[in-house]
This record gives sequence, C-alpha cells and structure tokens, in this order.
Amino acid sequence: MAIPSIPRKEYFDRIAKFQANIKKAGLDACLVHGTESDFANVRYLSEYWPTFEQAGVFVPASGNAILLIGPESLKYAYGRSVFEQKNVMQMLNYRESAEPDYPGIPLATFADVAKAAMGKKKLKKLGLVGTAVMTLPTLKALQEQLPGVELVWADEVFRPLRWNKSENELACHRKAFKVAEKAVQAMLNEMKPGMTEFQAIGIAQREIYANGGEYEGHSLYCFGGDRTSNGISRPTYAKLKKNEIIQLNIGARVSGYSSSIGLPVWFGKLPKEQMALVEFGLRAHDYTFELMKAGADAASIAKKYTQWGIDQGWGDYMLYGPVHGLGIMETESPWIETTSNYKLKENMTYQIDTFFTGNGYGLRWETGVIVKKGGCEIMSTKFGDLKYCKLD
Amino acid sequence: MAIPSIPRKEYFDRIAKFQANIKKAGLDACLVHGTESDFANVRYLSEYWPTFEQAGVFVPASGNAILLIGPESLKYAYGRSVFEQKNVMQMLNYRESAEPDYPGIPLATFADVAKAAMGKKKLKKLGLVGTAVMTLPTLKALQEQLPGVELVWADEVFRPLRWNKSENELACHRKAFKVAEKAVQAMLNEMKPGMTEFQAIGIAQREIYANGGEYEGHSLYCFGGDRTSNGISRPTYAKLKKNEIIQLNIGARVSGYSSSIGLPVWFGKLPKEQMALVEFGLRAHDYTFELMKAGADAASIAKKYTQWGIDQGWGDYMLYGPVHGLGIMETESPWIETTSNYKLKENMTYQIDTFFTGNGYGLRWETGVIVKKGGCEIMSTKFGDLKYCKLD
Repeated sequence: MAIPSIPRKEYFDRIAKFQANIKKAGLDACLVHGTESDFANVRYLSEYWPTFEQAGVFVPASGNAILLIGPESLKYAYGRSVFEQKNVMQMLNYRESAEPDYPGIPLATFADVAKAAMGKKKLKKLGLVGTAVMTLPTLKALQEQLPGVELVWADEVFRPLRWNKSENELACHRKAFKVAEKAVQAMLNEMKPGMTEFQAIGIAQREIYANGGEYEGHSLYCFGGDRTSNGISRPTYAKLKKNEIIQLNIGARVSGYSSSIGLPVWFGKLPKEQMALVEFGLRAHDYTFELMKAGADAASIAKKYTQWGIDQGWGDYMLYGPVHGLGIMETESPWIETTSNYKLKENMTYQIDTFFTGNGYGLRWETGVIVKKGGCEIMSTKFGDLKYCKLD
Repeated sequence: MAIPSIPRKEYFDRIAKFQANIKKAGLDACLVHGTESDFANVRYLSEYWPTFEQAGVFVPASGNAILLIGPESLKYAYGRSVFEQKNVMQMLNYRESAEPDYPGIPLATFADVAKAAMGKKKLKKLGLVGTAVMTLPTLKALQEQLPGVELVWADEVFRPLRWNKSENELACHRKAFKVAEKAVQAMLNEMKPGMTEFQAIGIAQREIYANGGEYEGHSLYCFGGDRTSNGISRPTYAKLKKNEIIQLNIGARVSGYSSSIGLPVWFGKLPKEQMALVEFGLRAHDYTFELMKAGADAASIAKKYTQWGIDQGWGDYMLYGPVHGLGIMETESPWIETTSNYKLKENMTYQIDTFFTGNGYGLRWETGVIVKKGGCEIMSTKFGDLKYCKLD
C-alpha cells in the first residue's frame, strides 16, 4: 500500500518561506502554537503532532527553527519531527492539562529558546501564530521569561503559506479521499436499522485504518432525527431508524492531510418535503462546483450561491457556507463567505460543504476540490448521486 | 446493551458545589474553558462536548450557569447540553481555528453573558478555570468586553470537584474498561507481523464502537521498535515485526469517562534483557496496587515506588510515574509524584501507569483503579499477566 507523504526537504522550504514573511512583517521571530486536536500549524513546519501535550515552533527571521515540546515527549519528538535533536527543547508550558510537576526533568525557558535560535541577535518583536489555539500558560511564560519583548498577533504572516498546496500535499489529500470512499462504502453496505450511531461510526473507523488512514480527518458524523439539522454535531447512542435522514460525514487523514465525504442516507422512504430538500441540496452542490476556478472572487462565489438558493426558493433553509478551506485541518482558512476578500488560486483546496436545514431535519452534501484553471478537480465524485442514498 | 451515563440532576449538583467554592474563594463568578480534545471541564458541568469549535461555562457565585458555544453549534448545544435553551449563548471567541466571519449570525459578548447570569449583581473578580487550555481569543474578549474586571487563575477552585467520583461516574469508568478489554482481546487475536501499526489500531477502533464506546479514551497506542521507549507517542505506518516489543495502550470512552489498558506484546521471542524488563515491569505494576488505598499519602506512594525500583536494581529504567488521575481525560489531575501534597480518598480513580525504558526499547503495564478503604478495586485485571504477551 503506497502512502504519499511530505518529504523532509519540503518542511524546510516552508520554514524558509515563512522566514521571508517574518522579515517582511518587521518581526524578529514568530512563535507558532499547536494542540492535540488543532495541531496543523506545528505539523506543517515540523511533522510533529503532539498527543496529551501541546507544542510550538519558534521560528527566527533567520537561522534554525526550534521545536518546543512538553516534558514527556522528548524521544517521541526526536523520532518523529524533521528537526535535528539539538533543535528540540522541552518546556513546562506545553505540558498536559493534568499539570504534573515532573520533578527531575530539565526544562527550558523562552529566554533559553530565543538564545538557542538567535544567538546574540536581539529579540524585540515576537509574532504569535495559531493565536486561536495558543493557551494561557504559553502567554504567561512569554510575558515572564521575555520581559520587554513586544508580542503581536501575527497569524496572517503564516496562514497564507498553507493555502496553496504542493503536489505532495495534493497527493496526500487525494489518497485521504480514496480512504474515505472505502469507509463510506462499507457503511452503506453494513448499516442496518437498530444499530447505534456509534456502531455505524465503528465501521468507518475500521476501514480508515485498514486502508491507509492514520486517523479520522475530523470527528466523524453519523446521526439521525433532528440532529441532522445541526451544523455541527456528534453521533450518539441513538439507534438508526427507518424513514428519516441519517447524515454521514466521513473523513480520513493521510500523512496529516484530511478529507471528508458527506451525504444523506435513509432506510425506507423519506417524507416528501425532506426528499425535496435532499434533491435541491444535490443541485446546489453541483452548482457550486461550477463556480470554483482559479481567479474567481471568493465573496462573489458566496453571494452567487446564496442568491441562487434564494431564487430557487430555498433561502430559508440556508445557514452558511457554501465552501471552506481544506488542509491538515478538515476545516481551515480560508472560508468562502460573502465577507471574503481574496481570489481563488490554482492548487488551493476546499470542501464544498452544502448544508441545508429544515424544521427538525437537515442534510449535507460534501466533498473536496482542487482549484484549477477554468474549473476544479473533484477529489471524490463517487457518492454525489441520489442512487447511494436509499439503503436496504 | 446497557450504557451507564450521568443523570441530568448530577450536573446541577456539581454546579452547586462549584458555586459554594466560588463564594468561598471570594470570586463573583468563574469562566471554565474546554476544547475539542481537552473538553473535560465543560463536559463535567454541562455534558456539552464541542467539535471543531471551543466552549465555555460561565458560573456565577449564585444563579444560573450559562453554556458558551461557537457560532455553528446552537442546535447541537440545545440538544446535547443539560442546560435550558435560554442559558446557552453563542460567542465569536469560541469559533473554530479557521476563524470564519459568520455574517448574519448574532453573537454575544462577555458583558451580555455577565448580565444574563448575574443581572444587576456586580462582576468585579472573575476566576479562570481550565487555564491550561484557555486560548488567547477568549482572554482578549474578556479584557475588551469586561474592562475593569479582575481576572484570576482559579483552577484550584474547580479541579478537586472532579477528583472524587460518584457511583454514576464509576459505572461509566467500569464499562469503559470492559469495552477496552474487548478491543485489546480482538487485537491479540488478529494482529499479525506485516500488518501496519495503524491497521492494528483499526481493530481496536472497530471494537470500541461496536461494544458501547462513544470514542477512543485517548489517542490509541500500538507501536514497535524504539518507539516503545517513548513516554508519549503515536502509531505509524511501520509494519509489526517479530522478536521485538510492541506496546499496546487501548482506551475506550463511555458517556464521557475514559479507560486505558496497556501491555507489551510480541511475536517470536524477545532478547533476554527485554524479557527481564517486561517481567520486572509487571512486578512493579503489581507492587503499586498494594500502595493504593484511602488515606495513603500521594508523595509517599511515589517515593516508595521509586525507592523500590532502585532497590531492585532498575532505577535507571524509570522515567516518571507511577500513577496519574483518571476521569473524563485519560490523564488528569491529580498525579501521584514525589512532589504531591495530598492524601488519597475513597472513590478517587487512577491509572497505574508502569512505564520503563531501556536503550531502544520500553514497555508500559497499565490499568485503572478505584481507591477504596484498605485497598483498591482494579477495573481491569484481565491482561495483567505474562501469558497474554506472546502472540502467534
């Protein structure tokens, strides 16, 4: 089984591009943050993925970046990250939330880190990246250990680097969709009324790991009843029932990169108004593909989609959308919203996330695309058809 | 399949106890934080478990607590949390890390929240709980939206509430260990040399969901080679090999509550020094059970364990340990360390986490216990025996 991955060199190319942005922004360095569930920034630069603990990457405007880890992960980080051992440092502020003391384990301060990364160069202005997930102990440690250093939120210095995907990244995404397809197909084959939602999730988990996934691409969705009207939700111990929508969203992760395939399914027969929304949803989904091409204005896509939905008479059923960025996180920047202010470029990756909600029911058609000149490559077309929805 | 859970009333009993602590600490209210991977504080008070987004609970010294969620989770939170709809509010600072704008969705500020929770009562001093996972956007929102309010780190006002488990919580833990046992047994039956570590994980995931789990109890461990010497690690695409330790740590989650069962396994035959460490590890594991009883001093347990290991001649192989708290998080407060400063009480739950590491190999024996008078109840005894280690 061939598993695509990101070559070591590509991580250092990313760091070099990031360092150019750091210089351009007038910063001396940036501190990037990642957590167990929101690890994308750190993994993008180092391949390291914390578990239990948190992690950071300290990137000076020039010189060696340093991976910052919790007290328990030294050997793990040595083996996993692309960084040399001398560029890995353990810090208390990245420890797990149980907050052990770790007597006897030597730990670094941010002053040590700055010295190791920058030598005698002065650190006056430090950019913070991943502020959405950066936690208070790290902020406190910065303030105490680097007195006088100006801390500035600097997500925009880093974030756009993750937008345009390399061929290696695209290969990981494509494989992640192939794995997700196997998981969805197994669910369609094996789901039965009376099974719990969690049991149906177990089918998908089995297939994700059996076919080359390293983890779920996001918390997996299988739920029925009025939970299908939730924009975000989790499965439950409820049993699958006949004659109602059951929403599936199944994503696999391959070498860091996510996917998600979403479709509504049912046993028996749907009420007429639900069936009409399912059919309209698929038309809206297909309409969105046509809007996705290099050079298209993001806000215009969102406005066209919204206006089209209203014109078709379904405006009241639209919550948000219709598209969000895809990468290491299954939902990442940039979104396509009516307030967006950028143009799509070749090799940006998105999830077409077509969600409609009625009174006590809802549904989502979803798949991933790669923006190309004149159109887009759809990473999984397999389940975008009503014929898959009706289960025996 | 009977799944134990926490009755609605118990959540409000917890909030009442928390409010007594808030008053005692001289605070007007506390703000509790949770994330997708570190959600315990929020779930403990509300049953809500965010996905993609973050969440909080605002608990005034008296009156109604308010669940604070991200912009996309309103219906999900209405259906899932034990709070009445009027006590759920959407806020931008809990949005997902992709940071969408959500045009058109009405959002609350912390001033709105304080008013809803406290009416005309003055908010002067606000305790922050879950500081280890609380993020910068929430801190920034507090500072901007509640100018003049004193913010104090107040984890200790809340944390001990989670230490002593109720009978309902113990029932969830016991079931979580039963589910984990099924997952481990399936792995022992089906693992083969040549299978990838991830594929072995897929066996466990299948069984967790099939047998009543709602999720993994922690990121599951199955790894071989020198990765077994990592205190923390993740599985890889490496294939399972003969004649070396493969470390399993498999935990299920039931109605929020975690478990983990750990043991070293191998195909073929281990080198002599590795076999000796496996056998010593199991003796150390069994020795620790004897130390666990109501009234025992936590630091003394850690010191006795460490001294015993040194006396037996294996001091160089000990990294930390030997015991950490177990609850909603598989690793939570309180740890048992030489620096601990408390006594064990009846119905506290712990993981006996017996980890030893040699040169290029390591192993962990692990299971959960409930502290009782005069001893402890071991929640899974099934795999604490060398006879399970050798696979065909």
